[in-house]
Amino acid sequence: MASTPVRNKSFSTVNSDDIIYFKKILGEKGVVEEEEKLDDANTDWLRKYKGSSKLMLQPRSTQEVSQILHYCNSRCLAVVPQGGNTGLVGGSIPVFDEVIINLRSMNNILSFDKVSGILVCEAGCILENLISFLDNEGFIMPLDLGAKGSCQIGGNVSTNAGGLRLIRYGSLHGSVLGLEAVLANGTVLDMLGTLRKDNTGYDLKHLFIGSEGSLGIVTKVSILTPPKLSSVNLAFLACKDYTSCQKLLSAAKTKLGEILSAFEFLDINAMDLVLKHLDGLRDPLPSSKHNFYILIETTGSTESHDKEKLEAFLLQSIESGLLTDGVLAQDINQASAFWRIREGIPEALMKAGAVYKYDLSLPPEKMYDLVEEMRGCLGAEANVVAYGHLGDGNLHLNISTRQYDDSILTKIEPFVYEWTSKHRGSISAEHGLGLMKANKIHYSKSLETVQLMADIKKLLDPNGILNPYKVLPTSVLPQRGEEEPKKEA
Amino acid sequence: MASTPVRNKSFSTVNSDDIIYFKKILGEKGVVEEEEKLDDANTDWLRKYKGSSKLMLQPRSTQEVSQILHYCNSRCLAVVPQGGNTGLVGGSIPVFDEVIINLRSMNNILSFDKVSGILVCEAGCILENLISFLDNEGFIMPLDLGAKGSCQIGGNVSTNAGGLRLIRYGSLHGSVLGLEAVLANGTVLDMLGTLRKDNTGYDLKHLFIGSEGSLGIVTKVSILTPPKLSSVNLAFLACKDYTSCQKLLSAAKTKLGEILSAFEFLDINAMDLVLKHLDGLRDPLPSSKHNFYILIETTGSTESHDKEKLEAFLLQSIESGLLTDGVLAQDINQASAFWRIREGIPEALMKAGAVYKYDLSLPPEKMYDLVEEMRGCLGAEANVVAYGHLGDGNLHLNISTRQYDDSILTKIEPFVYEWTSKHRGSISAEHGLGLMKANKIHYSKSLETVQLMADIKKLLDPNGILNPYKVLPTSVLPQRGEEEPKKEA
Repeated sequence: MASTPVRNKSFSTVNSDDIIYFKKILGEKGVVEEEEKLDDANTDWLRKYKGSSKLMLQPRSTQEVSQILHYCNSRCLAVVPQGGNTGLVGGSIPVFDEVIINLRSMNNILSFDKVSGILVCEAGCILENLISFLDNEGFIMPLDLGAKGSCQIGGNVSTNAGGLRLIRYGSLHGSVLGLEAVLANGTVLDMLGTLRKDNTGYDLKHLFIGSEGSLGIVTKVSILTPPKLSSVNLAFLACKDYTSCQKLLSAAKTKLGEILSAFEFLDINAMDLVLKHLDGLRDPLPSSKHNFYILIETTGSTESHDKEKLEAFLLQSIESGLLTDGVLAQDINQASAFWRIREGIPEALMKAGAVYKYDLSLPPEKMYDLVEEMRGCLGAEANVVAYGHLGDGNLHLNISTRQYDDSILTKIEPFVYEWTSKHRGSISAEHGLGLMKANKIHYSKSLETVQLMADIKKLLDPNGILNPYKVLPTSVLPQRGEEEPKKEA
Repeated sequence: MASTPVRNKSFSTVNSDDIIYFKKILGEKGVVEEEEKLDDANTDWLRKYKGSSKLMLQPRSTQEVSQILHYCNSRCLAVVPQGGNTGLVGGSIPVFDEVIINLRSMNNILSFDKVSGILVCEAGCILENLISFLDNEGFIMPLDLGAKGSCQIGGNVSTNAGGLRLIRYGSLHGSVLGLEAVLANGTVLDMLGTLRKDNTGYDLKHLFIGSEGSLGIVTKVSILTPPKLSSVNLAFLACKDYTSCQKLLSAAKTKLGEILSAFEFLDINAMDLVLKHLDGLRDPLPSSKHNFYILIETTGSTESHDKEKLEAFLLQSIESGLLTDGVLAQDINQASAFWRIREGIPEALMKAGAVYKYDLSLPPEKMYDLVEEMRGCLGAEANVVAYGHLGDGNLHLNISTRQYDDSILTKIEPFVYEWTSKHRGSISAEHGLGLMKANKIHYSKSLETVQLMADIKKLLDPNGILNPYKVLPTSVLPQRGEEEPKKEA
């Protein structure tokens, strides 16, 4: 458990006048005070963090978000923007009594252009609903992730969600063409362009992509969606060692080239865990156990060409000894079952007991060394499980134990962070920093860069009401009345 | 000609002590005072803008850039960062006597990882040299543009250069993984990550991509380069009308899907101009004249598959009447000759006389309406030439006349900008704003957004020494001693 910060005394507490005001602008339905609903909204998906907010607001328009923030800023009421609340670092729940602003009522698709593939929608749209909508139009979302059934596009953008298709379609910094965001003082920034190219001034939308709601609340998004190509294939493969996994990746990039759309890996510990804890899953390669499993997805426009490429690649990989076994999904049901293994790992980990989760970017050739070192450190005390987006250099390192135990945590941290920093990796590849890692930012960012982040936070949100205690370390963001820390550089 | 601003009186003038200081840190060779060299560096590629700087500095390291800026900031000496000086909006030359900082001596490739395709290099590397280096390694740059022989990667990144491959590989906001930049006060920001995914805090590198050197000087770049695929094909096609061009684009996106790597267009006026003014070029479709020409490039891993896709696509397009003629390049020489037509248009325009250049993003279905309206306005007074990156919605509108004439300019501006603004387009798709369009930003960006840009400029460069008079309108950036304009919102 991360050390909990102290409540910022300059923040007000919600009073009955506030409630009256919010009901006036949002109506009764937009102001939630019921304990049960608040309990859900105060608790994160991992049930690791819990806030004590007494109030959740559900605006239906940008104008309402603007009114809420203008009011909260003038009253110095802290707020936490919340989407599907599927984050893994305690970024989407209140730490104390912050007002929760949930965007779920802003869930309209505003426009879709079938020629350009540009989708404009409100921030509260659930990712899976957008995927279904686009499917009917012959397009796909450029991102896909396990939490798609509940996560919202505004949260995806605010946390720069990565997921399964990044290797093909790149990050949201590339595919988000525009957005609308509301600043702490209620100012609405209309940057909702629908152009692929626009070099008129600083491209400020990037400040809001991945800043976890700490600079503004994203209310609308314009996103470039790729056409749905008719041929999708999925292979479930096995390798005897990690070196083979890496070589297979290099070979896939060359041989599958333009049709490669996912390259995921899981180790034997992850596989065993999923088969043990999730119902109805079968080992696609049951004849023997393997140390590593790889999922390769290809997406292309011509089935016969893709099959030919994939089969040639697999044949060559078996002949050269890179692969020890493998199977191609024969239909969409089998493909879903394969994906369910990879996507079910987080759920299986939750069922297995306590879990310490780390989401690291590392040079691929070093990545698995960390897993093995960790196993050496922890011995029989814990099950060290590794999986992730090998094609993007992104390792999900999970340490599964019966229960949370500080003596185990001290063996993991700061070791994992120091190891990652030493290899110039990122201590958060895609999950963000949230509450869990706000004070750990220096492992991945220089002092000067963090200082500039703090200066920008102070510029955009001088009262610090937006998602406090998250993303940036308290040492660079003095609370009002405290002395400013001495600047480096 | 854009209206010239007034020199900011708070800036100092270079004196002999300054020269002594710069020679001490850079050596004699790094301090250029020769009139001829300065004349080149003071003049832009279009010969439309001319500054009067008496000093050009050529640092060899980030440390030297830092020392220069620290000194200039303390002395309040304005500077203009300069790369290959190939910009088209007066962004890379001094307006008055700003000190020119040219990065050409920082031209080392620092590392290249053949597994991940990540290249790290200094900002002064010439794009074409990087292309050649990568070619030997089996990779390509994710951007390619006509000026590649002289433009520098630092300038490309600082101006968020687009070019010919954006349709396939996206913008530099996606492919630049990290950078190092020096702020006005000499602070070095090390954001030179080499990771595809890194969600640790605000992704500040994006502030420096496309801000035209007005927030900091980019000194190093880390960039994701795609593998060179073995099969490249180029088709030179003809359409009878603009509607057919658009339909062809939609068809290409679906039928060529993952192998489409460029979709460029030129109209008959552009074609005639190139054939008239450039030596050694031949019409690839000489049997008759056509209203529109399209270049389609495909890039894939398997020659036979690509040829099959391309031939099927062309056959279908001819049968459905979208194409009136077309030819496939038979070898690399013919492909070069086809590209030379498209890439030679700016040069042909320069040879034809005076030229008013506009670089617009527009919804593709509206794009050519503007060209026709402009022809209607100008009649026989001017040759209205249109070409560009149709696949990205990017029109290069060029108005060619015998000589510059204010009576023609008043017929073009503000009409072109107003028309673009009305259709929610961008008045600068890829060229940036520079000096030419700094005061035009409101046609494409809201007041609130521009105000935030100005606030960020003041935060990062309080003395305003970095590339003054460019990018942002003087109305939002008061000079020292002047009163601040009243804030909107």
